[in-house]
Parts: sequence; structure tokens; C-alpha cells
Amino acid sequence: MSNHYFDPKLKIFSLNSNKPLAQKIADAVGVELGKSEVRKFSDGEIQINIEQSIRGSHVYLIQSTSNPVNDHLMELLIMIDALKRASAQTINIVMPYYGYARQDRKARSREPITSKLVADMLETAGATRLLTLDLHAAQIQGFFDIPVDHLMAAPLLANYFIDHGYEGDDVVVVSPDHGGVTRARKLAENLKSPIAIIDKRRPKANVAEVMNIIGEVKGKKCVIIDDMIDTAGTITLAAEALKEKGATEVVACCTHPVLSGPAIDRINNSSIEKLIITDSILLPEEKKSDKIETVSVGELMGDAIKRIHENKPVSPLFEKNVNKKRLTQKSLE
Amino acid sequence: MSNHYFDPKLKIFSLNSNKPLAQKIADAVGVELGKSEVRKFSDGEIQINIEQSIRGSHVYLIQSTSNPVNDHLMELLIMIDALKRASAQTINIVMPYYGYARQDRKARSREPITSKLVADMLETAGATRLLTLDLHAAQIQGFFDIPVDHLMAAPLLANYFIDHGYEGDDVVVVSPDHGGVTRARKLAENLKSPIAIIDKRRPKANVAEVMNIIGEVKGKKCVIIDDMIDTAGTITLAAEALKEKGATEVVACCTHPVLSGPAIDRINNSSIEKLIITDSILLPEEKKSDKIETVSVGELMGDAIKRIHENKPVSPLFEKNVNKKRLTQKSLE
Amino acid sequence: MSNHYFDPKLKIFSLNSNKPLAQKIADAVGVELGKSEVRKFSDGEIQINIEQSIRGSHVYLIQSTSNPVNDHLMELLIMIDALKRASAQTINIVMPYYGYARQDRKARSREPITSKLVADMLETAGATRLLTLDLHAAQIQGFFDIPVDHLMAAPLLANYFIDHGYEGDDVVVVSPDHGGVTRARKLAENLKSPIAIIDKRRPKANVAEVMNIIGEVKGKKCVIIDDMIDTAGTITLAAEALKEKGATEVVACCTHPVLSGPAIDRINNSSIEKLIITDSILLPEEKKSDKIETVSVGELMGDAIKRIHENKPVSPLFEKNVNKKRLTQKSLE
Amino acid sequence: MSNHYFDPKLKIFSLNSNKPLAQKIADAVGVELGKSEVRKFSDGEIQINIEQSIRGSHVYLIQSTSNPVNDHLMELLIMIDALKRASAQTINIVMPYYGYARQDRKARSREPITSKLVADMLETAGATRLLTLDLHAAQIQGFFDIPVDHLMAAPLLANYFIDHGYEGDDVVVVSPDHGGVTRARKLAENLKSPIAIIDKRRPKANVAEVMNIIGEVKGKKCVIIDDMIDTAGTITLAAEALKEKGATEVVACCTHPVLSGPAIDRINNSSIEKLIITDSILLPEEKKSDKIETVSVGELMGDAIKRIHENKPVSPLFEKNVNKKRLTQKSLE
Amino acid sequence: MSNHYFDPKLKIFSLNSNKPLAQKIADAVGVELGKSEVRKFSDGEIQINIEQSIRGSHVYLIQSTSNPVNDHLMELLIMIDALKRASAQTINIVMPYYGYARQDRKARSREPITSKLVADMLETAGATRLLTLDLHAAQIQGFFDIPVDHLMAAPLLANYFIDHGYEGDDVVVVSPDHGGVTRARKLAENLKSPIAIIDKRRPKANVAEVMNIIGEVKGKKCVIIDDMIDTAGTITLAAEALKEKGATEVVACCTHPVLSGPAIDRINNSSIEKLIITDSILLPEEKKSDKIETVSVGELMGDAIKRIHENKPVSPLFEKNVNKKRLTQKSLE
Amino acid sequence: MSNHYFDPKLKIFSLNSNKPLAQKIADAVGVELGKSEVRKFSDGEIQINIEQSIRGSHVYLIQSTSNPVNDHLMELLIMIDALKRASAQTINIVMPYYGYARQDRKARSREPITSKLVADMLETAGATRLLTLDLHAAQIQGFFDIPVDHLMAAPLLANYFIDHGYEGDDVVVVSPDHGGVTRARKLAENLKSPIAIIDKRRPKANVAEVMNIIGEVKGKKCVIIDDMIDTAGTITLAAEALKEKGATEVVACCTHPVLSGPAIDRINNSSIEKLIITDSILLPEEKKSDKIETVSVGELMGDAIKRIHENKPVSPLFEKNVNKKRLTQKSLE
Repeated sequence: MSNHYFDPKLKIFSLNSNKPLAQKIADAVGVELGKSEVRKFSDGEIQINIEQSIRGSHVYLIQSTSNPVNDHLMELLIMIDALKRASAQTINIVMPYYGYARQDRKARSREPITSKLVADMLETAGATRLLTLDLHAAQIQGFFDIPVDHLMAAPLLANYFIDHGYEGDDVVVVSPDHGGVTRARKLAENLKSPIAIIDKRRPKANVAEVMNIIGEVKGKKCVIIDDMIDTAGTITLAAEALKEKGATEVVACCTHPVLSGPAIDRINNSSIEKLIITDSILLPEEKKSDKIETVSVGELMGDAIKRIHENKPVSPLFEKNVNKKRLTQKSLE
Repeated sequence: MSNHYFDPKLKIFSLNSNKPLAQKIADAVGVELGKSEVRKFSDGEIQINIEQSIRGSHVYLIQSTSNPVNDHLMELLIMIDALKRASAQTINIVMPYYGYARQDRKARSREPITSKLVADMLETAGATRLLTLDLHAAQIQGFFDIPVDHLMAAPLLANYFIDHGYEGDDVVVVSPDHGGVTRARKLAENLKSPIAIIDKRRPKANVAEVMNIIGEVKGKKCVIIDDMIDTAGTITLAAEALKEKGATEVVACCTHPVLSGPAIDRINNSSIEKLIITDSILLPEEKKSDKIETVSVGELMGDAIKRIHENKPVSPLFEKNVNKKRLTQKSLE
Repeated sequence: MSNHYFDPKLKIFSLNSNKPLAQKIADAVGVELGKSEVRKFSDGEIQINIEQSIRGSHVYLIQSTSNPVNDHLMELLIMIDALKRASAQTINIVMPYYGYARQDRKARSREPITSKLVADMLETAGATRLLTLDLHAAQIQGFFDIPVDHLMAAPLLANYFIDHGYEGDDVVVVSPDHGGVTRARKLAENLKSPIAIIDKRRPKANVAEVMNIIGEVKGKKCVIIDDMIDTAGTITLAAEALKEKGATEVVACCTHPVLSGPAIDRINNSSIEKLIITDSILLPEEKKSDKIETVSVGELMGDAIKRIHENKPVSPLFEKNVNKKRLTQKSLE
Repeated sequence: MSNHYFDPKLKIFSLNSNKPLAQKIADAVGVELGKSEVRKFSDGEIQINIEQSIRGSHVYLIQSTSNPVNDHLMELLIMIDALKRASAQTINIVMPYYGYARQDRKARSREPITSKLVADMLETAGATRLLTLDLHAAQIQGFFDIPVDHLMAAPLLANYFIDHGYEGDDVVVVSPDHGGVTRARKLAENLKSPIAIIDKRRPKANVAEVMNIIGEVKGKKCVIIDDMIDTAGTITLAAEALKEKGATEVVACCTHPVLSGPAIDRINNSSIEKLIITDSILLPEEKKSDKIETVSVGELMGDAIKRIHENKPVSPLFEKNVNKKRLTQKSLE
Repeated sequence: MSNHYFDPKLKIFSLNSNKPLAQKIADAVGVELGKSEVRKFSDGEIQINIEQSIRGSHVYLIQSTSNPVNDHLMELLIMIDALKRASAQTINIVMPYYGYARQDRKARSREPITSKLVADMLETAGATRLLTLDLHAAQIQGFFDIPVDHLMAAPLLANYFIDHGYEGDDVVVVSPDHGGVTRARKLAENLKSPIAIIDKRRPKANVAEVMNIIGEVKGKKCVIIDDMIDTAGTITLAAEALKEKGATEVVACCTHPVLSGPAIDRINNSSIEKLIITDSILLPEEKKSDKIETVSVGELMGDAIKRIHENKPVSPLFEKNVNKKRLTQKSLE
Repeated sequence: MSNHYFDPKLKIFSLNSNKPLAQKIADAVGVELGKSEVRKFSDGEIQINIEQSIRGSHVYLIQSTSNPVNDHLMELLIMIDALKRASAQTINIVMPYYGYARQDRKARSREPITSKLVADMLETAGATRLLTLDLHAAQIQGFFDIPVDHLMAAPLLANYFIDHGYEGDDVVVVSPDHGGVTRARKLAENLKSPIAIIDKRRPKANVAEVMNIIGEVKGKKCVIIDDMIDTAGTITLAAEALKEKGATEVVACCTHPVLSGPAIDRINNSSIEKLIITDSILLPEEKKSDKIETVSVGELMGDAIKRIHENKPVSPLFEKNVNKKRLTQKSLE
């Protein structure tokens, strides 16, 4: 590519979890990915080779801690240790998907708070900044003592829906559970649409849960939104319930396509007509589906890296920007 | 009182924010409050006198960081420093109300995360445990590296409503905003009632917000629930909206009665018939109102202290217990 | 103003305790004060808005932790947290008056060492340097692990007295207590005058304290010096005693005009003819008095900030410089 | 089993890496293994349930960080976090095999020191002690700030050889590389035998390595010793070389049977007649071989736990004890 | 000795700086000194052998960091490291004399604050408490985050003077410099005597310093007091000046007899008739003098250790107790 | 010297242990040594004066912690504290010889790990990097959390031997003990020679140790190599044993000439014909010997400082470079 970035002290390295996204991010910044190799020995231990000097550099290290999360996390921690000992000036973790984010509080007795543990481990290893995307709970920012730049995919997803005609009063944005209503409301504001909530509840003990719906969906196009979709159980049941209540069409979206276990089968067999995801997690070949469309966060994250490196505010990228392109071009400082 | 606690190494001290609750807690445990004095000099500095030796003791220090929050927080930090230097064996903070809890994430650029700062300050000063109640976000537990025991007032509030006949299908539990739906659903489960949500939204720019309601409230008794009520603006507007939509009665409840500024006037002048609060924050004389009823958390917190000191699990106190009394009497270990 | 400072990465922010001094400091440096707002909600919690990007900047944050000390300290800590999370490169605290400085050791059992607690809190929040003035005890520097630049107002005060003819053998510099003799000796050296000490002692138990004087004051002009004047009890009694022993005139000076409670009344009604203070603490309108004259430390602190930012030694500002102006103009590196 | 340990505050939990050894250790102590469950979700995240209260307990947590090392390490870290937050009094890690131990220094540029990273992570998570066995380098003890009790399997292995007649001058103890000579010398002392060294070297560039042997092996029974055997390449080539030089028999031993990749095939097809290992790492069914015999470290580690819990010295277990049984029975304090 | 202390978990070890005092302290507690050996190799490195198990013990480690201060400090730090790794439960440093205490602030540019460095090193090594005596500046307590118990020798010295008839108005307590007036005033209160101050000053540049005296000494017995006497230059010149001004007798006292370089010669040749010291620093044979009398702090420090170990307040030992014996015998809790 | 280094922010200071080497290093870099003075008071305390501003500088501080190790270590720690408080930007410790390196693990019960303690003390004081040479164990790198650049003298020593004709099959490189075989093998590779090992062992209890030799030495020139030579006992006995077994000549080399106690006498009286050392430790006049030749590491360490300061990789200096000169001249990045 032709537009090389001017400052040789900015270096971007990718670990193994999502190399296509890493390449997009590097392209957006205008640098080549740093030379390094991460191997697994036959005894399961990870070995890292950094094949160029990074002494005094500002290193951005791209890794989603997606499945296999423990391997991806250890790759990251070991690489941070190597960079620290090799005299990197700053070590900036770029984590499009933050694994273990759902273990963010003690919901029951004697539970760990694994997402805090992950934060502590990153800082202990030597990370000096985190750049991440749509944390499961925004409070995870407070688990860190280093600066956290927290990007949001919502404007990208909103743009997609507006571009495809999902806007106004014949659309309803649906939260698939009680905890996601604020997220649904934000998307609804962009689409100028009302909201509804799936109120999953068990009428009595020993009776099956019912997918009750609060809000009006009859005759509407429903857009279900969640931050991540894991086994897709809730969302596909929600889609059936919406159809039963008279929804004319059900589409869904999420930032993080975890899509583990039965997820793809469930989606393929469900009433969901389309699932819009981002590439924060790499979708392997065997999970590809005609129903799934991907919006890339590569340019967004690349822009953020450039702004951080140039000490420009990242906040313009947070905002509801119908036309992101224009925004990043105008001077902000 | 007669049932003195057996272990002289357990000591309970109260600072200035909520002495009546501290006395109830001490009574529940069966100890006298420790002798100490907290004064403010004419230049505003706080001076602390601990008037008995606490060397080697397990100290439980009761303080809600309610208004004036900065003074109450500094009292707490200075007392912790004094206890640490005076060789307390453990310093257990008992904080029925955790101030600054709403500043728990960066919602906009360059915001502090003050509730993490508070956590760091407590640990730096020397706290070795936190016992608290209904944190604004459960993730605040993860701001701490010391053990946090997190109690819930929900069972006490549920009991109140059941005792007063608010139960079943003619009751609706209402969340006053998008973020509180999970809390409303939990109370609704105890009351075996449906839920509704206040969907405050601005239809267009430069048009006033409307209090839309999602869910059915017509002909029902509405119970609005929030974790804390501050200026009471949202909750009183919500009450009007519920009445307009045909609610027959509106009551409200919260754990933490912050009730600052115009709150009491607003409640007195609103359609809210009753407001049920706990004594996590001291309600001063001038804020008393005929509409307000208080459920004490003194016994709950006292029980928790005893369990902690005796290395018994605190979890039984977390559970939805319609009859708490029974539970705490039976042996749990 | 016209002489703008050359480096845009140097930013100065002021919190609420002493905005006039902050403006003087900023003027001396040649920058405009950064845009930020500190508000108190009706529940007493502080909210901070930083209204410009500070990413990568060297921020100097001006705050005296004067009365109300707890509010001013919390403003400072919260702002530091916000700056840290907003990626400031360095966070330099400029604290003309360091509150809680007198609680610097355990004088009695179970006392806190609050000035160490304050130091720990500043570092935990994220401060990377402290610039301060006339600490109550110089050992407080050792409470910090970050660099401390410690300025002295003594040369400014000495200049004032020399300019006004207080010099030589008909002047006596008086320490108002046993602990301040070294400070009095230093001023006396500048004025080429002898010293005397107020030896407050209780002749027997249950007998009133007497203000004994050690040293010769008869027929002399007395200059009492202290680092701070709080309620002004000691200093006004000292003035009476000096007059009784034949002093012809009594003037007083201090760096930090705490002047709490009855201080102004006591001074107005005392034999002290003039009190020279600095503006390290803002003197509110209601404390203004004809007897009080103020020497500004604004230029001194501004010079220090420039020297720190340019990696020049600050030490020339420490020295006894009868003509400070000249000194700061000549090249020092 | 009948001899239950007396102190209910001593609790032993096992994670998933080596449950048979954990059971042996628990039996040796005389307690039942604590109730807990470690599951992996379909997205690869680990979930932990601790099914009994451990508040105030001294917990010993058994886990070898063997293959899959990253999963086993994360299990351990998450469990430590859960125990810390659940108010365990001490968290004692029992790690018969310490994974990543070979990455203990920067041998080449930009290498991590992963075994230090592991130490830091264990301490950050909340571990308060490490009990381990035959660290690859004894210096790893210094990677920890918490106490480390370091056991040795050498006496157990020596006993095995003595019991089976490998003793005296017709036996040679062989170090398979230059770094293991001290280990070989120690075993040789116990067996009263001489030593030899495999001096693998490349005579010239681009010429194959030769397995030179320093020391006399002709007509002798050779006992190769290493701390761990991974792919078994070195040790099987060494065996061939020893046979070529006239060794009458070659046996081998190691503490940690990593035995990854082609290891079992290589051993089965090699001149090694017997391989003596310990159960520090679980040998799965598919790796069983007629050539392999196992000496258990269960009793040794159980004894150590009892000694630690009772504040007795562990050192007697370190010593070369031909008859370990007797030693552990006599009173040592 | 016969009165053995009851708790075997209390162990007292002595390093090399002051074994006679350590023995007195151990005798006062009623335990034997622990078995350990500290040797210096021929290359100057210190080696430590702890010859008995201290696992789980509360260890009190006695060392004055007197000359050779660096060796004595390293002995202490290495021993703390060994105790920490050997699983001591608490490590309580008993430091009758705290070396480097005078480097407690930056008096000039680019000075270290070595007494803070020492504090940090003790805590980093693993100390959990400090018991010390008459710190040069009480603020050094604040250099520590661990509890500091700070004893005072003043009552012991006062008792000596009262027992020997130095009391009342014909005695003057003299501070040898400006910084010691508070200390002199405290002793004067016990002796019911007035004070005087040596006001060493240089009348003009390039003119010799003169020993001016503030206060009345003519016809009086003068008692000079300092916290430590190093080269004895100031104190012997002060004595001459006092005699010149008509003092009838000059005696001196200090807690810490550093007495380095020419100190003993100066004292022997001076007008000082008697010098009362404590045994906080060992006085070697070659420094013995007929003029020097020693008051032991062994019993005081032994009492403090017992009180600390039994969780009784140490404060009674701080107080001005004319008859210390009585006080320590009566029950205080 | 003429080639002054271009960047005034690079400053090199030397403490007292090895000023000639420090001068060589400074010359190699092309800067003058910084102005500072380290004095010892008569009471043994160290005082440091830094006589020029270092605010904002990158300071390289040269000190070998050789005998008297405790004094040299304290000089270093105090200087680091002073530099930190004086606002140095980075503090890079240049330690050609790392004292206490042999206490790097617990070899027996209750031993300290003093080399870890030293690492912790350096980091606590404020060091930000370590540049060192031939650590006794490479694992000591992992004792640090700051970057460590670890140089090797082996290429310099190899060059010496090649230049003097010690090369090929008539030379044998000898390890004087079991732990040094890897080091011997590395030198042997450079010299294209075989190796031998001194196998010191005790045939039976109560029988004297014998110096057995493994490998062939008859008719060969023997080069004994060790990392340091302390009392020279082992190496001189080894030399006798080699001669007895028919070696034609014995020479020895080491990086660190500790040479304490009887070392020089032993060497002078031994069969060792030449001892090649580096100047990592200053050889005082009284230890000079005709048998000793010195290879300087000054240029190597100076090159490393330049590379570090210019963010170039240091690794080229690690490599086996027969002609070091050429290598450092060609461009490496």
C-alpha cells in the first residue's frame, strides 16, 4: 500500500486470534505489521519470537481474547512481557474483543471476577494502555489503572440499518433481555424507532420459562440488538416469540460474534433473516452463513490508533456519526 | 443490652454519618460501639481520637459516604490510617451507602471513574475488607482487590410489600429507566407480578422528552423501584405518567434515600402515595415526611458482621428469603 | 496577554480553591488556564468536566487544599484520576498550601498521619510530581516517592521587610513557639537581626500558662514569623507579651494565612500592627483587614513551572535572593 | 480413609490437571478433597464453582501446569481469584509441575521470561505460598516474594535405583547435556557411582552434531537423569550413543514426565530399557508403556502440607533420606 | 534466667550491632535469643544462617544501624528476606538507633532522602512492624506504611537527673541548636527548670561563628540535651560558651551516643563534667570514658515487645513517668 | 577527547567502586563523567552531592557492587534516590559486576535470596534499567521487572585466546566444577577445542575430596574458565590435578576477578601460568601479579550505552564476534 505512516516509532504487531482484522487495522494506519512469530510447542507451551528491534517504540499489539481464550490471553501476556523486557517505550493493547468480560461481578457466592483478573494480569505484565470495543459492562474500564480508550460499534451498525432502510416507526428495536434495554434505546434513537423488551420469566416454579414481550411489535420489522451472541439460544427463541406476536421480519445484530457451540445451526434454523456482526472476532470458514453480514471495525480501530499516537482526542470516534468518514477528516484539535 | 458478644477482639466503631444505624448494627452484634471522637477544626481539618486500644483487634468501621460525601469519605480514610498505624489486625469497612457509585465508568471523554478512585483510596489507606449494600453497579466489587461482601436490601423491601398486600397480577413493578429493568424484574418475581418500563425519550431534537411507558399499567397498583433516589425528578415524573396511563395507585421504593435538593418537596407534591426506604443513609429531621416509611438494614448488617467474624458464609443473607428471621436462626455451617 | 509560551504540550488547569493565584501563575508562565469545570451536585458529589483534549500533555494542576479542605482535596484527586484516564503524559500538582500538613507524625497514641495519607492518595490517583511551598515540616517531602519541588516564601518576606526598613540590630525576629526557632533564625540572618523565643510554659499544674520570653526585646521592633497562622491565638498573645516586655512595635508574617475562626478578630484587636502574608491561600472578602498586606507567590510559582518544564534547575529559586528578578533573568544552565 | 486430620481450617482443593495425585496427597494429609467444579463453556471460558464455604480457611490448591498449560494455568489463576474474594485466610499453591519453567531467562534478544510472568500472575491473583517440586532452575524461587517450599524427588528416585540394585562402580550416572551435570553428580553420590556427560557438539558448521561422551561407560549400566523429559529426542539419542560406546544397559529417570509429541514412540523404540518417572504430571492412558515405572510424590507432598500447616520445618523432607519413612515419623521440632 | 515467657511463637533474634542490649531485651521479655549466625565472607558479602525453624513465628529482630551503618543495614535486610522466605508470620524490626535518620529531607538540591529509602527498603524486604526509639524527626514514622511503635528515652534520662539532684530553678536545660528547643523544653518540664538556647550565628560573612546564648545561665547548673551526639563539636563548644557566661556546671545527655571521630577526645577535654547516654548504640571499649554514664533502654524495649505481642497498648511506656517501674507493673488494659 | 556525544540529555555518572573503568566507558561513549561526590562521614554514613542539574536527563550510573559490597550497594541506592528526587527522566544502572549474585536461590533451609533482594532494592529506589555483564546465573534477569541488558565477556576472552594461539585440538577447555560445563562448552566452540570437567567428589564419608577429571587432558594445554574467581581455592587445586594428569600447560580466565583473601597468593604459588580477567572489578595495586592480564570491557559497555540511548538493538554485542571492532562499526538497524 502507498500511504506509509510517517513515524517509525509506531509499530503494530498482531498475535494469532484475528490476523485479517489486524491487517485491516495496519492498512488503515498505513504501516506494515511487525515481524513476529508465535508458536506452540508440542507440550502446549507458547514461544514468541519478535524478529525486529522494538527498543524505544510505541507498540500496538492486536489480540482478541476469543476462543481458545486461554491460549489467546497467554499469547498476549507473554508478548507483553517480551516487549517490556525488550525496552518498548509504551505497550498499547488493542483488544477488539475482551474475553471473560461477562465474569465482571460476583453474582453468586465464591465466584471469581475474572475480567478484573484479566485486567490485573495485563497491567502486571506491563501493558500501558488498552484500546477496546464495546465492553460487556462499561465499568470494566474502572478495572484498569492505565488509560482505556473504549470504542463503540453502534454507529457502524446504525449506519448499516439506515443504509438498508430499517428506520422510523415501522421498525422496533428489541432488547433480548432485561439488562440490554439501554443499548436497544440507543440504537432506537439513531433509527428513530420505538423499543420492545423480551421479558423472559418463569410464571411459577417448575413451569417452563415463557418469552413474554413488553412493547408493541405487531406488524413491525424487529431489530434485535445485543453486545455479543454466544450460543444464540436467547436470541433465536426471542425471534420466534416476536414472529408469534406478529412481527413481519426479524433481523439481529451484535458487536461480538462469539457464536460458539450450536450457535450457527440455531441461527440458520431460526426466523432471524439476517445477522449483522462486526469482525471483532474472526469468523472461521465453518461458521460462515448466508444469513450473516459483517461490518468491519478495522478502519475505526486504525483511526483510533493514529489519534492516540498523535495525541488527538479519540472522542470524535465515539459519537453517533452518520457519516464517519467526514468526521475523521476534519481537524479536531 | 444483655447479649454481649463473646470475643473481645471484635470491635465496632462508628464515624459521623449514620450513628443511629451504627447503634442498631452494634446492638444486633451484641457489642458496644468503640470509643472514638471525630472533630472538625475551625480550618476544616478533621481530627480523630481513638480512645481505647485496638491493637490486634478486628475492627468494623461503619460509615455511609452520604452527603457531605467528601467529609464523610475523609473521616473514613483518616480513621483507617489511624487504625492501621495503631496495629489493628483487620480493618473491615462497613459502608451501607457507597457514595460516588454512579461515577463508575467513563460515559463521556475525560471523565473520572470516581468510584474506582474511592476503592483505591480505601485500599491504600489500609482497609482489608468491604461490607456494603446494593452497589449502584455490581461491577464495583471488581474495583477492589480485598474481599467484598455485598448485601441486598431487596428481600427486606419485598417482605414489606408482601406484608402490605402488594402481590400478584394487580400489581406492576415499574423500572423508572432503561438501566433498572433487571432490578424491577427481581422484585416482580418475589411479588409474582408483571413489569413495566418508563421509556423516557425525546421524539425529535428541540422537543421536550416524553415519559412513554412500555408494558401494561392500566388499573394496576404500580411499585416503582430504584436503587437510590437523589433529586426525585425522574421518579415523580414517572408517577404522573403512570397515573395518566390509568394506574390506580403508585408507590415507590429504594435502598438508598439520597433525597437531595428538591427531592422531599417533589415527593410530597407527587402522586406517589408511599415511599419505602432503608436507613442506609440517615434521614435528617427536616427530610421526614408522612409518605416515607423506613425498613432498617441494621439487623441484616449486624448478622453479616457476626458471620464474617465467625468465618460462616454470608451467602444465606443474600438469598431471596421471604422470612429472613428463620434463616438467620438456623445453623448454616 | 502577549508573551505566549511556546510549547502547546504545557497546560495549566486550576481547580476552585484559589483562582486568582492560578491566574497569576498562568500569566507568569504565559499560557491561558485550561478549560474545565468543577461542580458540586445537590447530593454533595463533585463532578468534573475537562473541556479540551489533554492527551499527551504535561498538565500542571493548581490547588491549595485550604478550607474546605476535604472538598478541595477530593476535587484534586478526582481531577487527577480524570487526567490519568484521559492520557495526560505527566500530572504535576501545584499546591501552594498543603492542607493537613500539621498531622505529620503520631504525637499521641492511635493518631493518624494524615499528611502521609494525603501523599499516598495523590500518588495512588496518579500524580507524577508535586510543586509546593513552605511545607509545615520539610520531612513531608519524604512522604512522596515522586519528585517534590519545594519552594520557599522566605526570600519574598525578607525582601518585604528590608524594603520597609526592618533590618539590623533594632529589630528582633521572634519565634512564637519552641519549634519555629530555626525559621526565625533564617529570617534574622537576612535582616541581620537577633532572635527571641516565646517560651510558653505552665509553671505548675492547674496554673495558667505564662508567655515567657527568652532573648532581649526591650526597645526593639519585633517581627514574629510562623509558617502558618490558623486561629491566631498564640501569635496575638505573643504580641501582648512582647509589648509588655518593652517592644516598641510588633509586626508578624507567615506564608500560609489559614486565618480560621476568630483569627481576624483577634488580629484586628491585637497589638500586631501589620501582618504580612502570601496569597498561597485565598483571603476571602470577609477576612480582609487593613492590617494585612499580601506578597504574591504567583511569579515564583510560575517561574518554577517554566523551569521544570524546560528541565532547568529550580534551585536558584530556593536561594536567599534579595533581588529575585535579576536571578531569574540570567541564564542558569 | 480413617485418619481424618484434626483441623477443619485446612482445606485441600484440586483443579483438573492431576486428580489422581491430588487424591493421594489428600489421603496422605487425611482430609477429603474440597467440593468444587471447573467447567469450560462452549466459548472456551472457564467457570469455577466452589461448593462449600472457605471463609477464614487455609486452602491448599493442587494443580500441575502441564499440557494444556494455558488452560491449567488459567484454571489456577481464576480459582485463586475466587478464593481471595471468598475470604480464604491463606492460599497455598501446590504445583507438582511448574509449567513454562524452561523460559526462565532471556537466552536470545526479545525473549520473554515466562516463568517470571507466571510467578507475577500467581502473586497478583492472590497466592500466599508456593509448594513445588524440582523446579527446572532453583533460581525460580527468587521470582517469588511469597515463601516457596521446594521439594525434591531425587531421594525417591535414588531409593528406587538402590532398591533395584543400581549402585556402586558398575553403574554410571549420565547427564544428557552440559547443564545437568550437577544433578547427575547428586544422584551419583547416592548411588556411590561415577558420572559421565553427553557432550553434544557440532564439529564444524554444516556438519551433523555428534553425541560425544565424556567419561567412561564401557561395560557399565548407565542411568541417565534429567529433571524433565519432553520430546525425548536428546535422551534417546544419548542412549544409542551410550550403547555404541559399550554400555551394557541404559535406564533413564526424570521427575517430570512431560512426554509430548513423539516422546513415547521414541522411548519405546530406543535402547532405554526402563524409564522411571514420578506422578508430578498425569500420564494419560495413551502414553502408558511397559518401559515406564512411576514413583509417587503424593506422600511427600502430603507430608509437606501437614508440616507447613503445623509450622514444622519442611527441611527434613529435602534431605537425602535413604529411608524417608522413618524420618517423617520421628518428631522434628 | 527463670521467668520464661509463655508463648513459643515469640522469638527474638539479634544481629551483630549491639548484642549486649539484645541480651538485656531478651532477658526483660524472658526468652532466649534465637540461634543464628551472621558472617562476612572474605569478599565482603554477608551470609546468614538461621539455625532453628521460625515457621509461623512472630520474630523480633534487634539491630541498631550504627557504624558500620551499611553493613548493619544489609545484615538486617538480608535477615528479613531470609525470615520472609522461611515463613515467619510477622517480622518486627527492633531498631534502638535508626541510622541515616538525619537525611530526612532535601535540604539542598539533588539530595537524597536516605531515611525514606531505608524505610522503603525495610518494607520491600518484608518487615511488618518497626519498634524504635527517639527518631531524629518524628515525621520518619510517616515514611512507613507498617505500624511504628516509637519509644522515648526522655523519661529515663529525666529520672536520672532527678535522682542526682538536677531539678528546679538552679538548673537550666540547654538546647545546643535552634532545632532542639522543643526537646529541651520537655526535659525542662520534668525537671521544673527554665531553658536556654545556643544561638550559633555568623555575625558577618567571613567572620567566625559565635556561640551566642539566649536565656539566663549565670550561676546555674546547665544540662545540655540532644537526641544524638556525633562528633561532639557543637556540644563541647556550647559547654565552653556556657561556662564563659557563668554556668557553674555543665552536664550533657543524649539518647544516641554515635560518638564518631574526635568525639571522645573532645568530650574528655571539654568542660562537660558528665555525659549521660543510653545503650541504644553499643559503646566499644576504646570509647569508654570516666565522664560517661549509661542508662539502659533494655527493659523499656523488652516491655514494649511484650505489650506488642500481647496486644496491650504501648502508650503507657511513652508517658512522662517519674517512676516507670510502677507503671509497667499495673494492669493497663 | 574529541568525539563528543551529540545529546546533552545523556549523562554518565560514576560512583566509587571502579573509576578507571567508568572513565573508559565514558570515553567510549564520548561524554565527560558527571560531576558528583560521594563521601563517608566519620559515623559511616554516606553523603552524596550531585553537582550539576540532571533534571529530565537519561542518567547512566556506573557501579560494580564489589568489595566492600555493602558500601558500594548503599552508594548506588542512595544515588538512585537522589536522582529520582532530582527528576532524572530515566535511571540506568550500569553494573559490570553484580555482587551477591551467588545467593540466587535457597540452597538450604532459611537462606535468603540476596540477589533478588538487591534487585528489589534497586527497583524500589527508582532504577529504570539494568545493564550488566555475565550474571552468575542468567535467571537473575528474571528477578527484575525493568528491562535488563545482559552483556557477555566471552567473545572478548575468546579473542584473547585465539590471538595468543590457544585454539584447536591441542587445547582443552576445562570447567572447574559441575555447574560450569555449559560455559566451558561455549568457549570450547570458539576455540574449536574439546572440554573436560573437574569432578570433585568425596569417595566415602570422612575421606578427603579428590579432584577427579572427566575427559582427556594428557599432553594438552588446559584453559580453565569460570565466571568469577573468589578465593581461588578450587581453581588452583584444579590446576594441580590437571598437571598431574599430564596437562602441558594450565591457564585460566574469568570475567569477574573477585580475588579475595588468599586468592593472589594461591595463584602466584600455583601451576596456573596465566590468568586472564576483565576489568569489571577494579584490581587494586596490592593485587597486581605478573601472571594476570586484563581485557577491558569499557568499550563493550560504552557501545551498549550508546545503542540503548539511540534505541538500537544491543543484541549484536551479544554475539560471538571474532572481530568485535568490525561489527560495531557497521550499521545495524
